[in-house]
Amino acid sequence: MLGNFSFHNPTKLYFGEDSLKYLNEELPKYGEAVQLIYGGGSIKRNGLYDEVVAILKANGKRIVEDGGVMPNPTAQKVREGVQIARENGVSLLLAVGGGSCCDYAKAVSVSVNCKEDPWDKYFMRYEEPDCEILPVGCVLTMAGTGSEMNGGSVITNRDMKLKIGHVFGDSVMPKFSILNPRYTMSLPMRQVTSGVYDIFNHICEQYFSGTDDNVSDDLAEALMKSVVRNSLVAVEDPQNYEARSNIMWAATWALNTLISRGKTTDWMVHMLGQAVGAYTDATHGLTLAAVSLPYYCHILPYGLQKFVRFAVNVWGVRPEGKSDEEIAHEGLAALQNWMRQIGVAVTLTDLGATPEMIEGIAKATIILKGGYKVLTRDEVIKILTESL
Amino acid sequence: MLGNFSFHNPTKLYFGEDSLKYLNEELPKYGEAVQLIYGGGSIKRNGLYDEVVAILKANGKRIVEDGGVMPNPTAQKVREGVQIARENGVSLLLAVGGGSCCDYAKAVSVSVNCKEDPWDKYFMRYEEPDCEILPVGCVLTMAGTGSEMNGGSVITNRDMKLKIGHVFGDSVMPKFSILNPRYTMSLPMRQVTSGVYDIFNHICEQYFSGTDDNVSDDLAEALMKSVVRNSLVAVEDPQNYEARSNIMWAATWALNTLISRGKTTDWMVHMLGQAVGAYTDATHGLTLAAVSLPYYCHILPYGLQKFVRFAVNVWGVRPEGKSDEEIAHEGLAALQNWMRQIGVAVTLTDLGATPEMIEGIAKATIILKGGYKVLTRDEVIKILTESL
Repeated sequence: MLGNFSFHNPTKLYFGEDSLKYLNEELPKYGEAVQLIYGGGSIKRNGLYDEVVAILKANGKRIVEDGGVMPNPTAQKVREGVQIARENGVSLLLAVGGGSCCDYAKAVSVSVNCKEDPWDKYFMRYEEPDCEILPVGCVLTMAGTGSEMNGGSVITNRDMKLKIGHVFGDSVMPKFSILNPRYTMSLPMRQVTSGVYDIFNHICEQYFSGTDDNVSDDLAEALMKSVVRNSLVAVEDPQNYEARSNIMWAATWALNTLISRGKTTDWMVHMLGQAVGAYTDATHGLTLAAVSLPYYCHILPYGLQKFVRFAVNVWGVRPEGKSDEEIAHEGLAALQNWMRQIGVAVTLTDLGATPEMIEGIAKATIILKGGYKVLTRDEVIKILTESL
Repeated sequence: MLGNFSFHNPTKLYFGEDSLKYLNEELPKYGEAVQLIYGGGSIKRNGLYDEVVAILKANGKRIVEDGGVMPNPTAQKVREGVQIARENGVSLLLAVGGGSCCDYAKAVSVSVNCKEDPWDKYFMRYEEPDCEILPVGCVLTMAGTGSEMNGGSVITNRDMKLKIGHVFGDSVMPKFSILNPRYTMSLPMRQVTSGVYDIFNHICEQYFSGTDDNVSDDLAEALMKSVVRNSLVAVEDPQNYEARSNIMWAATWALNTLISRGKTTDWMVHMLGQAVGAYTDATHGLTLAAVSLPYYCHILPYGLQKFVRFAVNVWGVRPEGKSDEEIAHEGLAALQNWMRQIGVAVTLTDLGATPEMIEGIAKATIILKGGYKVLTRDEVIKILTESL
């Protein structure tokens, strides 16, 4: 808690099995035309689409269709979504889906009233919105990105082979998000565990940085322990509501700015994973899983005390009679063991990457400076190669 | 995470040594007349009053004085504050002080535009505001109550010997709060540790209830561990900024609704403590400290598994070869040891209570139903007597 910081997170969350009905409380606050954003159509198969449409109609809304948001939403799709919103005078962007839909909705929200190209302005030049922002609401169907309670938006430019995230301020955060753990239960387990690793890594990215003794790190450990414990239950028993609800709630708090307050953060696993994602279109969480252990093994000597703390507090490693290095490596071994148990111990090769791609991926990797070791380009290549 | 719930906490927090300057960002949002609420005048001695007045004047505000808020703000004082706000057309209530000032400001905020008596409406009948609520801002000088980021307000009626809390909804939460850990450093250590115990007990009240495996309880344990660790540093080294800042931030998150989401809560220690407070005017945190161990020892058999978890996860008790009862009691012994270390191991007798008062205090104790054992009136008397 050494730095100066602010915290403001105005998103209203409705959580639980009955949470969709609260859409009726939120909709009257906005105008007539609602842009209904969703992905590949799974919400049509499981009935959620019909439920949402019925509520929109009951509230007298005009529905503007915007389906087909891809797992890695593209700059081109954002341009199309902006066009749809403009042509239909949309006053609320309602994302029904996972983090991709919510990220996409936010990218559209800051661009509808802006003349410049969204990709250039927000993802190449990292500018802040200087135009009126369209409100975003979210009905979440997958736990993972935390996009439901933050200002983040990750967009991919296929032509440029770039996947870039912009964390906008509180004015871009969803006005409301509806979180019903039941919606996450129809997902294939592979997608669930990929989301689980994404959640876990969000926490790691904020935890593995800095040296001060910080409440944020205590909270991070609590969330990590909860994600580990509940994911093991969910893998064995996918319909366990308690486990699935704990995972969903932990995901939100893993990335809504709380556990980064008053400290520096890393985010290099995400930089590596996003570069891989731009080359392979592999699921986000799995790209993170593939590069994590090579990366953490590499930076361990530079952040030894934190890795010791991680081992003891998150994984229950007994420190007695062991060197710090031994304790730290036991922690990473426990992490690897858990990744195997939930089925996310993958390599970049598993995800379709080839040795020939490494140089390109390394070049596309943005190098950040908040971690325990600022990587050189050679180190990036080394870590990616070890991840194959 | 079994229940349905919502989370919405719109208070904007500014934290750190430079945080007061952000008052300049908030003040322009409100009208000319600002009711400046403070306590016994310590902010005049330490210079904070002058700093705040200078910022108010620089922002063209008309200052309406409202000092003298007592540690347990009274219904009578609230009525006077309402009168001041009405007579001066106040548009912002700015509380500069600890939780008492902030609680008081909230009680005034819901009453200025309301014809009924505040005490009757909100504290006897627990009604919700049905009138326009005046905005509240807070410059916090003491860590403890969490009032800076919640809708709670505890008011005392001296004539009726009642101290009652009302937790209002998000519309009553402060619009902004400024948290500078330096301000807490000029307080006498007795007041600091009393606040520390208040924080710790807020967490206990939400933790010692329910049986499901919940993210909220993981977060509660993280906050408890942080409060314990940092309070021990602060007692030895009162000017340790890191420790003081961690305590201040943990206090906010201990009582802003986060760690009660999706679970039941207890709050009986507060009910007992508040009844004592109405009789003795002892510091709030110390009344909680006096009744805690007798209360927790009494309910331990009814919530044994949670007390075991508390012992292991918060206090590091080794469970091997011990019965659940032994583990649980070791946890309470560790709690008692920590209370001694920070100097809050007090009795009701230390706080000025006498055996003759017990019946009256017991009568004034509101019995809640969320804990592991719903107390009978005889049990209340037994616990209070053991606390003497």
